Amino acid sequence: MSLVVVGSIAFDSVRTPFGERERMLGGSAVHFSLAASFFTPPRVVGPVGDDFGDRELAVLHERGVDTSDVERIPDGRTFFWRGRYEFDLNTAHTEDTQLGVFGDFDPKLSAEARATDTLFLANIQPDLQRAVRAQCGGARLAGLDSMNLWIEAARDSLLRAIGEVDLVFMNDAEVRMLTEEPNLVRAARHLLDRGPRAVVAKQGEYGAALFARDRFFSLPAYPLETVVDPTGAGDSFAGGFMGYLASRPAADVADEAEVRRAMTYGSVLASFNVEGFGTERVVALTREEIDERYEEFRSMTALAGSSPAP
Amino acid sequence: MSLVVVGSIAFDSVRTPFGERERMLGGSAVHFSLAASFFTPPRVVGPVGDDFGDRELAVLHERGVDTSDVERIPDGRTFFWRGRYEFDLNTAHTEDTQLGVFGDFDPKLSAEARATDTLFLANIQPDLQRAVRAQCGGARLAGLDSMNLWIEAARDSLLRAIGEVDLVFMNDAEVRMLTEEPNLVRAARHLLDRGPRAVVAKQGEYGAALFARDRFFSLPAYPLETVVDPTGAGDSFAGGFMGYLASRPAADVADEAEVRRAMTYGSVLASFNVEGFGTERVVALTREEIDERYEEFRSMTALAGSSPAP
Repeated sequence: MSLVVVGSIAFDSVRTPFGERERMLGGSAVHFSLAASFFTPPRVVGPVGDDFGDRELAVLHERGVDTSDVERIPDGRTFFWRGRYEFDLNTAHTEDTQLGVFGDFDPKLSAEARATDTLFLANIQPDLQRAVRAQCGGARLAGLDSMNLWIEAARDSLLRAIGEVDLVFMNDAEVRMLTEEPNLVRAARHLLDRGPRAVVAKQGEYGAALFARDRFFSLPAYPLETVVDPTGAGDSFAGGFMGYLASRPAADVADEAEVRRAMTYGSVLASFNVEGFGTERVVALTREEIDERYEEFRSMTALAGSSPAP
Repeated sequence: MSLVVVGSIAFDSVRTPFGERERMLGGSAVHFSLAASFFTPPRVVGPVGDDFGDRELAVLHERGVDTSDVERIPDGRTFFWRGRYEFDLNTAHTEDTQLGVFGDFDPKLSAEARATDTLFLANIQPDLQRAVRAQCGGARLAGLDSMNLWIEAARDSLLRAIGEVDLVFMNDAEVRMLTEEPNLVRAARHLLDRGPRAVVAKQGEYGAALFARDRFFSLPAYPLETVVDPTGAGDSFAGGFMGYLASRPAADVADEAEVRRAMTYGSVLASFNVEGFGTERVVALTREEIDERYEEFRSMTALAGSSPAP
């Protein structure tokens, strides 16, 4: 099945307690598509500048990512982000952001992209998310991510965008912030009332929780002793989640078992992503490693099959 | 089987966004023993003053709690705490603490208490925890809780106490603080290296995670739309956990299935505890309600029984 992701393609310079890297391949659409590629060949929509070279494209191609809709802007510069993480690794401190070609991004999708079954609107300006959503009217499943910047700068448009997708992926703090409701259960319900069929609250080191109208599912994060670089964890999570669902043509958000598997694959991909800088770990990953960790998730969350003692 | 808890018996005045109550029955040993009472009749060790009356004792007796080891200090005043919670309900703001008889507490256990199978050292000064532990040499299973106050004021003694029990229950922030290690997996391992067989990191609204030498288990908190009063949630969690294990004479910390059930009962009891002020909700609870919520925990955490798609 087809999967399109619209988002940033970037160079990231990152410093964490475990080291630093200059101008790594990054961006939400890149992390998403690499994670999704283990389940479905994704197609990336996003702009790059002249500085984006064959080496970067090759990383995507090697994982089967279709870059036909990557728009190269002559004389432009690729989006650049520089950040650092302190010892707790939960908060990114931005030191520099250069929008470059991303500042004038106006997504134009090819006919193939517009015909996609499954669509993911990564964290970009909500008006653009809505414009892309409108171009992909036939998508049976659409999801989006967002962030505090858009809650502050484009709240109304973001709420409208949320009403036009099936799945919302946001950090739990951002779900609370957007709804101005400190209780996460109520906050998620406020968003569900706007139309999406499920809200997935990403909780960083605590995992993730899925809220649907009358269902709840929660999964811890994989217990890692060393988190090397959290950049892209949320996008990898969404990539594993949406990539798995896209690979299951009959799957629907109402199919609880499939959604739980999707969330587990998302958690698996996010856990691998943070084990290395940038995309280093995920591009070296095998399907066998993914399946092994999936089984670990199953066993570390399983209540014994037998009934509780009387 | 027998279960002894040593801790505070208190009057709590609490204000939350949902209301306030004056001088409710509270204290760590009270919350613990009421939760445990659904599985095993517990025995409480702790001091009270003249102001502790028959009405308070009756609450414990009605739930089958043995108060023979409650020491009444003539002319003394029962421990008193006044606190409030803001809208996020995660942090208690202490407005007043009057130690009263708790200031000179020197636990003297009856012969019956010393002969207990199962022992819980609620959050008291670590030297006292160790003295009680030494008095109950025959206990097959001992657990303790602690808090930031003792990490700051009695760190060495707390670390020794941790080495003398099987199960450590602490907030995850306190596990990090005590070990000076921001990564929770490593922090828990530092504590395991001191001797306990499992560390249970309580994570408030995110649930709880259990770390043993080569095992990990995690459980979310029950998704509540309204948390009325979080006071005593951690003690109720430990009470459900230890109470269940105490009711299973063959159960051991190494018995993974039993420990996971224990953790689930702990989470169930904690979730009910926060639905009302003080002990209000737990004293009105039925075993049927507990079992229903246990099943909800099972279903909201279950990865589908079938294998992931190929």
